[in-house]
Amino acid sequence: MKWAGPRILQHIHLDSNPTDRMTTPSASLLRTVDEIMTPRSIAVIGASEDPRKFGGRILRTLLEQGFHGTLYPVNAQRGELLGHQAYPSIDRIPGPIDLAIMAIPREHVLDTIAQCAKAGVKGAIVVTSKFSDAGDEGAALERDLVEIAHRSGMRILGPNCIGIISPVNNFVLCPSPVLLGRSVLRGEIGFVSQSGAVMGTIFDRAISQGIGFSHCISIGNQGDLELCDFVDYLIDDPATRVICSYVEGIKRPQRFDQVAARARQAGKPWLIVKAGRTEAGAAAAFSHTASLAGSHAAFAAVCREQGVLLIDEPEAMFLLAAGMSRFPGRTVDKIALLSPSGGGCAMATDRLVDVGGVLATFSTATVAALDPMYPGVAHNPVDIGAANDGASMSHTEQTHRAVLSDVNVDLSLTVITAAPDIARFAEMAADGIAGSDKPSMMVLLPGRAAEEARALLRQRNVLHTDTLDSALRAISAWREWSMFVAPEMPVRPPELPALPAPSAGLLGEQGVKDVITAYGIGVNHGRFASTVLDVASAASQLTSPYVLKIVSSDIVHKTDVGGVALGLEHPEDVETAARKMWERVRVQVPHAQIQGFLVQEQVIGDLELLIGLKHDDQFGPMVVVGAGGVFTELLKDVVLARAPVSSERAVRMLRGLRIAPVLDGMRGKPPIDIQAAAEAVSRLSWLAHDWGASLKELDINPLLVRRAGLGCVAVDGRALLC
Amino acid sequence: MKWAGPRILQHIHLDSNPTDRMTTPSASLLRTVDEIMTPRSIAVIGASEDPRKFGGRILRTLLEQGFHGTLYPVNAQRGELLGHQAYPSIDRIPGPIDLAIMAIPREHVLDTIAQCAKAGVKGAIVVTSKFSDAGDEGAALERDLVEIAHRSGMRILGPNCIGIISPVNNFVLCPSPVLLGRSVLRGEIGFVSQSGAVMGTIFDRAISQGIGFSHCISIGNQGDLELCDFVDYLIDDPATRVICSYVEGIKRPQRFDQVAARARQAGKPWLIVKAGRTEAGAAAAFSHTASLAGSHAAFAAVCREQGVLLIDEPEAMFLLAAGMSRFPGRTVDKIALLSPSGGGCAMATDRLVDVGGVLATFSTATVAALDPMYPGVAHNPVDIGAANDGASMSHTEQTHRAVLSDVNVDLSLTVITAAPDIARFAEMAADGIAGSDKPSMMVLLPGRAAEEARALLRQRNVLHTDTLDSALRAISAWREWSMFVAPEMPVRPPELPALPAPSAGLLGEQGVKDVITAYGIGVNHGRFASTVLDVASAASQLTSPYVLKIVSSDIVHKTDVGGVALGLEHPEDVETAARKMWERVRVQVPHAQIQGFLVQEQVIGDLELLIGLKHDDQFGPMVVVGAGGVFTELLKDVVLARAPVSSERAVRMLRGLRIAPVLDGMRGKPPIDIQAAAEAVSRLSWLAHDWGASLKELDINPLLVRRAGLGCVAVDGRALLC
Repeated sequence: MKWAGPRILQHIHLDSNPTDRMTTPSASLLRTVDEIMTPRSIAVIGASEDPRKFGGRILRTLLEQGFHGTLYPVNAQRGELLGHQAYPSIDRIPGPIDLAIMAIPREHVLDTIAQCAKAGVKGAIVVTSKFSDAGDEGAALERDLVEIAHRSGMRILGPNCIGIISPVNNFVLCPSPVLLGRSVLRGEIGFVSQSGAVMGTIFDRAISQGIGFSHCISIGNQGDLELCDFVDYLIDDPATRVICSYVEGIKRPQRFDQVAARARQAGKPWLIVKAGRTEAGAAAAFSHTASLAGSHAAFAAVCREQGVLLIDEPEAMFLLAAGMSRFPGRTVDKIALLSPSGGGCAMATDRLVDVGGVLATFSTATVAALDPMYPGVAHNPVDIGAANDGASMSHTEQTHRAVLSDVNVDLSLTVITAAPDIARFAEMAADGIAGSDKPSMMVLLPGRAAEEARALLRQRNVLHTDTLDSALRAISAWREWSMFVAPEMPVRPPELPALPAPSAGLLGEQGVKDVITAYGIGVNHGRFASTVLDVASAASQLTSPYVLKIVSSDIVHKTDVGGVALGLEHPEDVETAARKMWERVRVQVPHAQIQGFLVQEQVIGDLELLIGLKHDDQFGPMVVVGAGGVFTELLKDVVLARAPVSSERAVRMLRGLRIAPVLDGMRGKPPIDIQAAAEAVSRLSWLAHDWGASLKELDINPLLVRRAGLGCVAVDGRALLC
Repeated sequence: MKWAGPRILQHIHLDSNPTDRMTTPSASLLRTVDEIMTPRSIAVIGASEDPRKFGGRILRTLLEQGFHGTLYPVNAQRGELLGHQAYPSIDRIPGPIDLAIMAIPREHVLDTIAQCAKAGVKGAIVVTSKFSDAGDEGAALERDLVEIAHRSGMRILGPNCIGIISPVNNFVLCPSPVLLGRSVLRGEIGFVSQSGAVMGTIFDRAISQGIGFSHCISIGNQGDLELCDFVDYLIDDPATRVICSYVEGIKRPQRFDQVAARARQAGKPWLIVKAGRTEAGAAAAFSHTASLAGSHAAFAAVCREQGVLLIDEPEAMFLLAAGMSRFPGRTVDKIALLSPSGGGCAMATDRLVDVGGVLATFSTATVAALDPMYPGVAHNPVDIGAANDGASMSHTEQTHRAVLSDVNVDLSLTVITAAPDIARFAEMAADGIAGSDKPSMMVLLPGRAAEEARALLRQRNVLHTDTLDSALRAISAWREWSMFVAPEMPVRPPELPALPAPSAGLLGEQGVKDVITAYGIGVNHGRFASTVLDVASAASQLTSPYVLKIVSSDIVHKTDVGGVALGLEHPEDVETAARKMWERVRVQVPHAQIQGFLVQEQVIGDLELLIGLKHDDQFGPMVVVGAGGVFTELLKDVVLARAPVSSERAVRMLRGLRIAPVLDGMRGKPPIDIQAAAEAVSRLSWLAHDWGASLKELDINPLLVRRAGLGCVAVDGRALLC
């Protein structure tokens, strides 16, 4: 795998989004995340001894986890809390305060923040909710809060967050009840979460499986400090190897892009569970491109481009993060599957195949090593219960060692079902994988009967989980990461023109064809005829057979109203067809203004593609490729990328389509001209770059692609400008 | 939902498979499953006190679970075991023996079985492995074993099984270590498993979640008694409401079909985890139908027809089974989703949508009931943490009660993340769903922090699991079951001819068209011409435009070798095209014998379908519908059913395709003639019935379907007979 350097895109639209600017001009005076993440003194405002209260859990957890700095509990009623001197208010605290946390009623938050600012607090964690998470009034309050803080350079984490768990920096400021009475586990995973409940959930599930964290930060409403501020911190943090995030929405898209690029350059994998990905945005249904390429698709495209991994559920995310942090840089493709039972092998193989996983073919050396133990059945998957040792499973350790040392194996997955001695089996398997430089995962399918095995694997630091789902999601994402190719820097073809963007409104087929012709994309020749009487003469200047199309800015889908006629042989056929078409369209769409007809040379292609452009509100110009013609809407088979793209990248986009098998020729058919199609995509993508936000969307459908060497031709297209 | 009566199909091919016959003529003397499942006396052969040994675990578990009948431990060395008198051998046991179990070295099994037979044992459970699970020699030994048993009427369970766990009949004969030291939980789920390890795994995971069973039977190699014998027993067992199976292969397909129909008629859902479903059989790649319709597809079609639910993983299976047994007959469609956190709501909504689940729209009454607690956010999913009660979650019970009583809600799914008090939240949620006649499920996402909640939900008998995956699989399958429609009895159209099956070999396009024309399926008109010189005259008898096709039994895919020409206007164009085609094909496929040309009228259709027939080795004649033309292989979008099918059924098959949106007209296009296509499918399906096993496969591709009312036309086809 190759983590390539920075690319041109991140410089293109840095200033296009006003939210990207600081909310205050005094940015240089603001405290840094570094200062907040390494507090020497902490004030817990609203501290209490009652673990049923937020302030009680915060104080108790901070003490349980052993903060070594200076602690200032703040409580108006009590002089002492849990053996520590308490202070009635912020202004009564004698020394400097690096970090303050408050879980107090909303009506007191602004005053308290003002006191903190006055006292020179560097950072304040606001646990209290009902700010921008609860309507306009709360949002205004949140803006005020941040403004007050920024006047003194103080930074805000939250509001509506649950603070920070930082095993590396030795402090926990978090009201989550999952922390009470248990020690946090240090690991090399940094985690930033937009939801406090999800952070608590993931943290607890992970440490229950023996997976620890370097730092966990709950960012809440991101009123001031946001996702990327902390990801930036984690990129620079030597104690963090892998970054995980739970994200509901991206606040600063360009920042996200920059930080993702930084993480990639630093060689730190960034794994994200993104919620809300199925919610269709309220996009205008102007064209295929618009209706298919929602905002999540754009976000996913940016993640794909930066090597950021999107994962469907939290458990798979931290399992993968743990794997990547323990085996840094390791790539994963072929899997060795092992189980104490044939049933475990059979079920797991099905499921692995379902997610596109690949079983390794064992080398002859491995088969030779296994054969004495598994005569005649020394293959992948390995049913350890089928060994010739009765049911003793005595070959478990040796079998694991043998398959992990196979050159064809990248990862071993052990699916533990019931067995004569589950814990002993797990122990032997753990012995077998110990010391290998390749990753292993174990799945424990039984319930209580596997508890001893779970404890053992936790203690032995073996990656394990209770479901095949999580293990297979983690493996699939690891494989995706392993196959990542950094996008090439796209080079602008020197002959591309610098056309001014047309004025706002719809650009019809001929307008689009004029533009793309200038960009070097082939179109079928045609002539415009404003009346039925002109079409025959237009046809006579072209080569037969002809296509006739109605021209009307009121008609988006011409075929649906009988506005397209194909295979016309003679100019007089075109005239007859035009006459009929006029009648038909007038009946079907009585209100439509008909501007005239297009007569074109009919071209035959081997594959219909959709290629298009779309300006995403968050991530700027995007280019889209997909199945064309009637299959555009049926298959919804599209791949997006930020524009511009190189033609090499466009080839990979095309190969990412579900219809990709057609590209290379199916059933002995000759391959189609992928190069020409990719070149067209690349050239078109520069148009998105050149016209920027003026070009809302554009689609060419179909782009008819012919056999290899014969090129491609844009047959229809339209665009919307603003 | 309607569970319809038996249908014609199960009578059609009952005797087509020789494995369906009894292995011995003395079938009427054989003991029944009933006798084996209600033993009053049990002999444990190879009994021991050592729980590390199979015989030790069997004896210990039997005693721990409290068998009330007579127990005979058999051990050559010991006079007493665990306080019970032991016997040196079977023949020294004084009384009658209903059931014997043996986990002894393979070399002693046959002798021991002979002794059991002599002693009048009714049934013997053989735990020992390496019989038909280990090659030909073992298989021969297994046949001998069964033959010896059958001579005295004795039945065999296994070999290579782990016996029986029967909470209802108060006995456990099972060496699985998961049973040691814990009490089995009685429930209404009957479970039959082909893998012993999977049975132990599922049993343990289920009882760890508070889900019990009526009977669990491990069938192993099914040397004698097999899957369906026990499913039959469970159908008649009043203590069993839902049947679960883990299946690797079906031994007696016709029996499976009959038993599935019985289960359906008895109103007992049958849930199956089928392993090995992705292993492509070694099918000859003759045509699309063959390459797409493997044997698992046929099995899945039979299950779909009989309302048997196939589920991808065991945990979802027993979770659904528990739900169905607690809410018998309840159908599920619309879901209410609840969580203590917005993050839980967001993640779960995405995942529900991913699997095609549907969130209920709350009634105005429910919104009115929720609004005081959730001002402005009283919608589905419900973020209970967003209520106006601070973070107390005090509305949890009332919220659950309100959404479950909503007429639009069929099931509530509560996704528990970290919360201020997880156990208290679970308790309130359990209170809220208590007494409802609608099912609920809860998912616990935290790890150790949710242990108290888990224990509480287990004790309160609330359906719960640790992963959204299992809950969503269970809900999806429940929804599929709810939408089940029993296939109509297909009625043979009276005008169908009784054509004799042609002799073995390939049947070309014209042969297929002749047959299907007789079956009332439209074809495009055509004439055969044996030489280039004859094609123009053939064309002159038809209506222009023409299609020209090469005729050669050596060419399967004519388009791939330039053997098809379209859009020919005049008879002389056809001759020119034939001349060129002859040259082209001679170059491309030099070895091919060319019989001549087909000249046909070219037809235009709105949708290309594949319709076909296939004789499945296990389940007999099947009919296939799918996407046609180039999309057949690209999309692999097919639906199978056993032939014959009614046209109503054929409509449902077509609507089950991924390309189904096209049927009703996309983007304002008129709908296509589904009725005509379905009628063609139904008629074709009778051909599969009429020709039986002689017809190996047949496919028509494309069947061109026109707009509604205009019918459909078979344009190409071929068949293979044997």
